Amino acid sequence: MTDLAALLSPRSIAVIGASNDITIIRGRTLKVMRSHAYAGRIYPVSRSQSEVQGLKAYPSIDAVPERVDLALLVIPAEFVLDEVERCGRAGVKAALIITSGFAEQRGDAGATLQQRLRDLADRYRMIVCGPNTEGFANTAAALCATFSPTVDSLAVPLLPVARKSGQVAVIGQSGGMGFAFFDRGRPKEIPFSYIITTGNEACLEVFDCVDYLLDEGRTDVFLLFLENIKNATTFKRAADKALRSGKPIIVTKIGHSDAGQRAAASHTAALAGSYDAYRAMFRHYGIIEGADIEEMVDLAAAFSLYRERLPRGKRVGIGTASGGGGGWVADACIETGLEVPTLDDATRKIIDAHLPPYGTSQNPVDGTAQAIRVLGYSELARLIALSARIDAVVMVTSTRSAETFEREHDNLRRVSQAATKPMFLWSYTNPSVDAVRIISETGYPLFTNMHHCVRAIAAMSDYRARRETYPVSHEQTFATDATRVGRVRRLLSAPTLCEYQVAPILREYGVNTVEAHLAATVDAAIAAATAMRAPIALKVQSPEIPHKSDVGALALNLSDAESIRRGYSKIMSSAKQHVPHANIHGVLVQRMASPGIEMIVGMRRDELFGPMLMLGFGGIHVEVLRDFVLSPVPLGADDARTLVDGLRGRSLLNNRRGATAADIAALIDLIVRVSHLAIELGDDIAELELNPVIVHEAGHGVSIVDALATTRRATT
Amino acid sequence: MTDLAALLSPRSIAVIGASNDITIIRGRTLKVMRSHAYAGRIYPVSRSQSEVQGLKAYPSIDAVPERVDLALLVIPAEFVLDEVERCGRAGVKAALIITSGFAEQRGDAGATLQQRLRDLADRYRMIVCGPNTEGFANTAAALCATFSPTVDSLAVPLLPVARKSGQVAVIGQSGGMGFAFFDRGRPKEIPFSYIITTGNEACLEVFDCVDYLLDEGRTDVFLLFLENIKNATTFKRAADKALRSGKPIIVTKIGHSDAGQRAAASHTAALAGSYDAYRAMFRHYGIIEGADIEEMVDLAAAFSLYRERLPRGKRVGIGTASGGGGGWVADACIETGLEVPTLDDATRKIIDAHLPPYGTSQNPVDGTAQAIRVLGYSELARLIALSARIDAVVMVTSTRSAETFEREHDNLRRVSQAATKPMFLWSYTNPSVDAVRIISETGYPLFTNMHHCVRAIAAMSDYRARRETYPVSHEQTFATDATRVGRVRRLLSAPTLCEYQVAPILREYGVNTVEAHLAATVDAAIAAATAMRAPIALKVQSPEIPHKSDVGALALNLSDAESIRRGYSKIMSSAKQHVPHANIHGVLVQRMASPGIEMIVGMRRDELFGPMLMLGFGGIHVEVLRDFVLSPVPLGADDARTLVDGLRGRSLLNNRRGATAADIAALIDLIVRVSHLAIELGDDIAELELNPVIVHEAGHGVSIVDALATTRRATT
Repeated sequence: MTDLAALLSPRSIAVIGASNDITIIRGRTLKVMRSHAYAGRIYPVSRSQSEVQGLKAYPSIDAVPERVDLALLVIPAEFVLDEVERCGRAGVKAALIITSGFAEQRGDAGATLQQRLRDLADRYRMIVCGPNTEGFANTAAALCATFSPTVDSLAVPLLPVARKSGQVAVIGQSGGMGFAFFDRGRPKEIPFSYIITTGNEACLEVFDCVDYLLDEGRTDVFLLFLENIKNATTFKRAADKALRSGKPIIVTKIGHSDAGQRAAASHTAALAGSYDAYRAMFRHYGIIEGADIEEMVDLAAAFSLYRERLPRGKRVGIGTASGGGGGWVADACIETGLEVPTLDDATRKIIDAHLPPYGTSQNPVDGTAQAIRVLGYSELARLIALSARIDAVVMVTSTRSAETFEREHDNLRRVSQAATKPMFLWSYTNPSVDAVRIISETGYPLFTNMHHCVRAIAAMSDYRARRETYPVSHEQTFATDATRVGRVRRLLSAPTLCEYQVAPILREYGVNTVEAHLAATVDAAIAAATAMRAPIALKVQSPEIPHKSDVGALALNLSDAESIRRGYSKIMSSAKQHVPHANIHGVLVQRMASPGIEMIVGMRRDELFGPMLMLGFGGIHVEVLRDFVLSPVPLGADDARTLVDGLRGRSLLNNRRGATAADIAALIDLIVRVSHLAIELGDDIAELELNPVIVHEAGHGVSIVDALATTRRATT
Repeated sequence: MTDLAALLSPRSIAVIGASNDITIIRGRTLKVMRSHAYAGRIYPVSRSQSEVQGLKAYPSIDAVPERVDLALLVIPAEFVLDEVERCGRAGVKAALIITSGFAEQRGDAGATLQQRLRDLADRYRMIVCGPNTEGFANTAAALCATFSPTVDSLAVPLLPVARKSGQVAVIGQSGGMGFAFFDRGRPKEIPFSYIITTGNEACLEVFDCVDYLLDEGRTDVFLLFLENIKNATTFKRAADKALRSGKPIIVTKIGHSDAGQRAAASHTAALAGSYDAYRAMFRHYGIIEGADIEEMVDLAAAFSLYRERLPRGKRVGIGTASGGGGGWVADACIETGLEVPTLDDATRKIIDAHLPPYGTSQNPVDGTAQAIRVLGYSELARLIALSARIDAVVMVTSTRSAETFEREHDNLRRVSQAATKPMFLWSYTNPSVDAVRIISETGYPLFTNMHHCVRAIAAMSDYRARRETYPVSHEQTFATDATRVGRVRRLLSAPTLCEYQVAPILREYGVNTVEAHLAATVDAAIAAATAMRAPIALKVQSPEIPHKSDVGALALNLSDAESIRRGYSKIMSSAKQHVPHANIHGVLVQRMASPGIEMIVGMRRDELFGPMLMLGFGGIHVEVLRDFVLSPVPLGADDARTLVDGLRGRSLLNNRRGATAADIAALIDLIVRVSHLAIELGDDIAELELNPVIVHEAGHGVSIVDALATTRRATT
């Protein structure tokens, strides 16, 4: 963990390039900084002025009367390197470089400049944030080292008065988006600890900041905006630490699409990684993906309040005075994977005592306007939460007027303090400022968007569940076997390995492919087939023919010598015709496997995150419907089960009555073993694909019917 | 179309039950009504007071000095019927019944009361809205006949000052939700024509209102909140009229889930219909489904402004000063099915002239803060729209301050007036009131949610496309053939029809099943098989055995007499063992079809909307993944193609290179023919399923391998 105190909590700051003209960034940054009650010392540095915005200015950093913690650079790009060097010599500990025109610029010049900046930072061991950043804000220090208009001349304090606990840090590469989270969240009374924008990330990256803030301790929830991750190790360390300490990370990663990628094109030669791999890593570390600013702010608000009162399950109780609103929330819950069970009779009886005949207590509980007027939202929420069938409560409210909430102010607080289950308010009308304040003061999250409310419950329940299975016990016990690795490495003899070459590698991990024999002649094939149970398949083995069925290099369901003879001749001539240059190692004679569900198990090396396990449904499912998942390795049995359950087509493994029918245990065993292979050979194998893996009925195991690997010998 | 003028634009109103106590609904309704400048006459009717809220009150409706258009009833349920009768006798034309305690109440008493209310309305030909409604607002008349707090003592006029065109009507069963749309939309400067809440809909339904408002002419966009549709005919008429006149309907239909259904349980014995059928009907009439209040309001805002400037396609140009924001919108576009093409070189050259070296013109166009400051958002939008590759423009903006917008006020207007392509603004910061005003005045829709902006473009493009293919030419030309119907009806001889019985029905519509022969004995089966090309299948035909494979009543791939003899014996004994009471009509000997993609084509009678065509992928896809679509009938070839394209697994019909490989033409022909069957026999057949229909490679047609029908003889 890099200590970022000099950057984020400096005792003194030099503003290099400070100006009196507040219409330009050089002037605006100083103005914004001074509009807050920052207690540290600020030194404008200006070549032309002896006083800037009423402060004594210095001609250069050397002239500043103390060794400042932080230098803020808002000068043209061509002067930045010299100035950083001067700062380094002057003992400045951190630099915030707002200047644009580095690697984000067309052409090579900017990238070169950025590389040299990185070298300088290393040489002087200086913390460098930027370039091309919009700066940061540290609310506790009332320090806004930024030109962002979102913190300029605020009418309200940076931190809400009513609530300081559960602080949220925003960290993002994009300045505009980073400060937008604050701008959207502050009116919702969310306490923000920091807003940090890292720009081009020549040195300091988003997850360096996460890592530091976790140790610093003031932050409980992270809101991240990522264009990419440059350093997988930093990411993994920080993500692991965050999950272990129960401090949720809510993230968006842009650039899923080509067009998004074009916009977010990594200017710093970072390894992009695939979005599928990012999602797998996020899932692994319990990182919550958000869809847009509003949803992410709402998720943060919920976690900020209920980080220590996460729902124990997915069962939601809904209270409402609007039948329509209650039904709508119920639909939203179900669509989001939550449950809306009917309340138990005992709880219903308690509630029914308060309802008029046109109310209903089943769930949604339609309290009617009449009962809500008497009970208040809080009391109805308390009654619903009594039910052991419920993990969280959503109250459908109108917060247009604060009147109702003023009336039940005390009970709102009493209920929220005594509650052991999280309670959420959704307002279908625009909230009044007073209602927002009362609801915040008394300890509830208020949502104006129904779906965000419901997704927050689902995310919190998933986060809790992920925490309970993490760290994966297996991860701690799996030890690599160096002897085995040595043995297997000798088998990685070529850039592409055919099925018959992959089989012995798999056997090293206790994985058997279907009984097969490599035959060099048709007579050898017939002899091999005779020793097996018919029917058999013939498969041309050639590194140049990875997809055998495309070129007719495959014959299935052969039973007698004559058909084998015909099949052999046909597939050899077809293979030679389609791929004339193919180096053919022989023909694999293989017993036909009995039918079942076709799946794929494999590993892929992600360019950023390294080896990952891949699991999917076979054939059309993976190709057309893209129904597959990735996971970092190794995996324990529980992880493997979670992975299987994460497939969209999971129910293909069930019988008609919805019970698991396929041999999931054998599939899980296979996944775990392949994950061991992936961890041990992740540097040697680029891709391994067992396809198809036929999953038979429970108790009948799996059959690996084909396998292919590419090694990294030739590709690196 | 029922004339609703007496209800919605009354010249005089009696408020029956009016009170001086404004803390109760009886008093609040009159107060809310009088807080607006309604020009008609209001007569409080009170049994106890001679003056209410400063107005002369009358002891009964008979004492009111004129025959009022509208009586508003806010009296206890038990008095409502007598009062309606009195109103009827007094010649009152319309009644708005706010009172609760009718069919929404537990027990039968309320439902009976509601039925009697309906009878009274019929007897006096009175328009009755409610009961259990929150009333309505007519903005042009400044009439708020409601107790909704959302229109109580408004600080702003009901209609925005700047804009009166493109008015939006909200119509919903739920009062709370209905007025919430107004509450959320009014601050966005959306002009609302009406907010109408229909409550229990004893008589007046949502689509009666749509129908009337279409003729009345003041409304251009409809926002509907539906718990159910009670009358399919009213719905179809209004939806058809709306689509033909280009007045978009944006809807949410609650109660998809059991829990939502529980909340929205139809109190009025309405046929619920399946949500799948609702979606099919919405799709047919180009009705846009919205997810929540915010999204629906935002969709309405976009249509309200650009109803006559809908995007001609899905290609979006994005302009931004925030690289991160631009990339995020690009991702959102792609996820929503829009395209973000690179701009053409000529347009790029024009834009590049304005950009600093760290900007980019490809798309997203990162104008950088610097270029935006010089050009303004409007000018950059205009330049992007120059590209012939672009159908709509999204500008990523910050509207926190109105300064920028004030500066470019004139150009904003100029650009919007000259534009032929729709332009959208997304603000990542909270908009200032002034910015909202300027953007509205100059003619742009402003979104704070990025996804709503993007979905609006997609919805508008889809709506335009639907308008272009509607009305379906086929629908106008298809005429039923009474002779055929007569012939076929005679074939509907039993509650369940097996494949051999369905085949002749299909033949009447030019649809052939695979060659087959019904055999009564094993020798007859062998004889039949001999006359066919092997291999063949044997299938037990029994109405008691609809799912043959479940009970082993099916033998496949038989080639010689011996195997047919064994197969026949095996399936007959298995069928008799599993279904001892089965009435077996014989064994169908059928030629095995060559392989292909398995699909299902069928018809289902929806309890509300009547016969619908069903199309899906076969086997696991329809059962497990629920990948099927419904459509009203009949369908023309274009509709059928759209239906095929609407399947999630559509690409299963393609080859590996993504081109269509299956015989779509034959599939479409089959769909059209089955749709004719459905329209002609929709009252006679409850369900028809051709499953599987094997779709072969292009040019090789389809094979119908099994068929089953249930008739309505036994079920009705």
